[in-house]
Amino acid sequence: MYITGIGRTKFGVLSKSLIELAYEAMYNAINDGPIDITDIDAIYVSNFLGGPLNGQLHLNSAIASLLPDMNIPIIRIETACASSSVALNQAIQSLSQFSNVMVVGVEKMTDSKYMNPTDAIAMAADNILDYQNGLIFPASYALIAQQYMLKYGIGHDVLEQVSYLNHKNSNLNPLAHFSYKDVSMEMIRQSPIVASPINLFDCSPISDGAAAAIISKDRCSDRDIEILSSHVSTDSISISQRKDLTSFNATKTAVKKAYAEAGINPDDLDIVEVHDCFTISELIALEDLGLCEPGRSCDMIENGDISIDGRIPVNTDGGLKANGHPIGATGLAQIFEVVTQLRGEAGKRQISDHEVGLAQNIGGIGGTAGITIMRG
Amino acid sequence: MYITGIGRTKFGVLSKSLIELAYEAMYNAINDGPIDITDIDAIYVSNFLGGPLNGQLHLNSAIASLLPDMNIPIIRIETACASSSVALNQAIQSLSQFSNVMVVGVEKMTDSKYMNPTDAIAMAADNILDYQNGLIFPASYALIAQQYMLKYGIGHDVLEQVSYLNHKNSNLNPLAHFSYKDVSMEMIRQSPIVASPINLFDCSPISDGAAAAIISKDRCSDRDIEILSSHVSTDSISISQRKDLTSFNATKTAVKKAYAEAGINPDDLDIVEVHDCFTISELIALEDLGLCEPGRSCDMIENGDISIDGRIPVNTDGGLKANGHPIGATGLAQIFEVVTQLRGEAGKRQISDHEVGLAQNIGGIGGTAGITIMRG
Repeated sequence: MYITGIGRTKFGVLSKSLIELAYEAMYNAINDGPIDITDIDAIYVSNFLGGPLNGQLHLNSAIASLLPDMNIPIIRIETACASSSVALNQAIQSLSQFSNVMVVGVEKMTDSKYMNPTDAIAMAADNILDYQNGLIFPASYALIAQQYMLKYGIGHDVLEQVSYLNHKNSNLNPLAHFSYKDVSMEMIRQSPIVASPINLFDCSPISDGAAAAIISKDRCSDRDIEILSSHVSTDSISISQRKDLTSFNATKTAVKKAYAEAGINPDDLDIVEVHDCFTISELIALEDLGLCEPGRSCDMIENGDISIDGRIPVNTDGGLKANGHPIGATGLAQIFEVVTQLRGEAGKRQISDHEVGLAQNIGGIGGTAGITIMRG
Repeated sequence: MYITGIGRTKFGVLSKSLIELAYEAMYNAINDGPIDITDIDAIYVSNFLGGPLNGQLHLNSAIASLLPDMNIPIIRIETACASSSVALNQAIQSLSQFSNVMVVGVEKMTDSKYMNPTDAIAMAADNILDYQNGLIFPASYALIAQQYMLKYGIGHDVLEQVSYLNHKNSNLNPLAHFSYKDVSMEMIRQSPIVASPINLFDCSPISDGAAAAIISKDRCSDRDIEILSSHVSTDSISISQRKDLTSFNATKTAVKKAYAEAGINPDDLDIVEVHDCFTISELIALEDLGLCEPGRSCDMIENGDISIDGRIPVNTDGGLKANGHPIGATGLAQIFEVVTQLRGEAGKRQISDHEVGLAQNIGGIGGTAGITIMRG
């Protein structure tokens, strides 16, 4: 199966509504490839916080309103921050009966009149065991960063480099939340503490945005990107139930299956998008994906391995940190970037070798993981 | 493919939490059939209001917490009140790659500390076009009832009979929200108006509860029920976008495909479960499913056709009206009833002929419809 069209909006603090954002991404995806909207057999909609932040659930029917009288199956998936990679996984699965399926992910996080985004995002954690004890997400990831730094003896400077690299990449991405913003190491170092050791520049932003993709059973054009494998795994929701905070079993389980099905190993990857909701999760992802040994991701960063001109470029769009994190759209924005790079259409941020790419998208504190491997 | 296990909780105002309810239904479904929990390849979780009412999203990971180290794909589906028939549809689709899949639907609607259920349920309608203009669900269905009564010249007495029949059936169902409650025509007639012409006994209750099913590729025991077809269709979310309020295109589109795939017609059905969130929607459902001509469902009720001992028994468990409507579980409770009847295990409410059954589950004001046809 193939990705035959991609589209997205700019990410950032946007004045469009949830549905307008979804429409824009869907429109762009349709116009990107040869598949017409009337050829779409089903749609998967990914969204995390439409209920709590926008007072809008039943988004599959809201999308149906954009397509009068089509009456096709439209299904909404919610698996926290992994919603859109899981929606993509389900869309791929649906090709057992359909020819062309659309996936659209959307989130409108700013300007909610219902509640603040931090409390809403906390709904991805265990309400009783985590949230009611103060474990909003920056606090949970601060505990993880503390554990990781203690276990492997690294300092906060490694996290600062992750942040710096992502911002450097987003400056080459006109659609990023932080595009063309000069961010210096000095600004990163001096940014205020959110939950020690995590400071402001360790956190991805609250973004609005949408992204979409068309998935087809058959190849349609020479710009199509083949999907080699897609796998989803889960783990317990509360960090109180984890034996180890420095690695996520859901990522490791999903990627093992994904490598096996694709018939590749980590050395074959030319581009990787990882879920850096906080800088610490980028380090953990590099290790969980098998790109280096546990505790050695700091070397990859130090050696320049993950830079755009490095051995294995990571988050060339700026990642969640700087491209932005409109939650329901994030996993599809990763797909957008991998497809753009594999096609050789990434402009100023184009990588040199671009045959095989991987996207890793997680929900909560690694409670859900979605892995997609693609070939150009 | 086959339904090889079913389980549910009692419906009603319950003191268990969202996760405890889900666990109980899952436990009962596993114990009902020959499939062990370790044989389950994936789980689909259906829930509508976990975010707004319980502060709990990412329910797929919360379910993973009940199954330590299984790390299987668990996916949450939300399509308003049709969530669980759509989750079932996706589970069936997943049998293209899996052998045994669980579907669990759950809702904890009472005792929310976050918001009132009526405002939360309104998130299934268009926030801008419907809710902000006062169209909470009883108001929308009141407009529909007005249109229907005007178009076909029927009085409120037909709706009263629908309510009476459902309560009569729920008295034979020990798991119903209203079990063993004597409800007289007098009580129904004299109940307070909610939104004219809809009175209290035209409305399904606010219920807590869960239901689950195991779906297997291969037949496992002689209690298995075959799934002949499952289809999902959508329509616009706002009633302001509909040309006709007295019929739902999503139901008609889905059931047409479902009959064709199953190779049956309405006359072949021995039992039907319809989505009577309000009594008027039971009348519309009977017509949209082709059980009678448009406007003639009143005859079916008058003639006793839909009674337990009638020509085509409908909502033998009491329907949403009297069995209850814990939204994310409702579609699976319908499946529970059809399977129980087709197996011949329905006790005091057992129908005589029980070969083929259908369940119709809708979301919002018919914005989503899920149809499942089964054979014993």
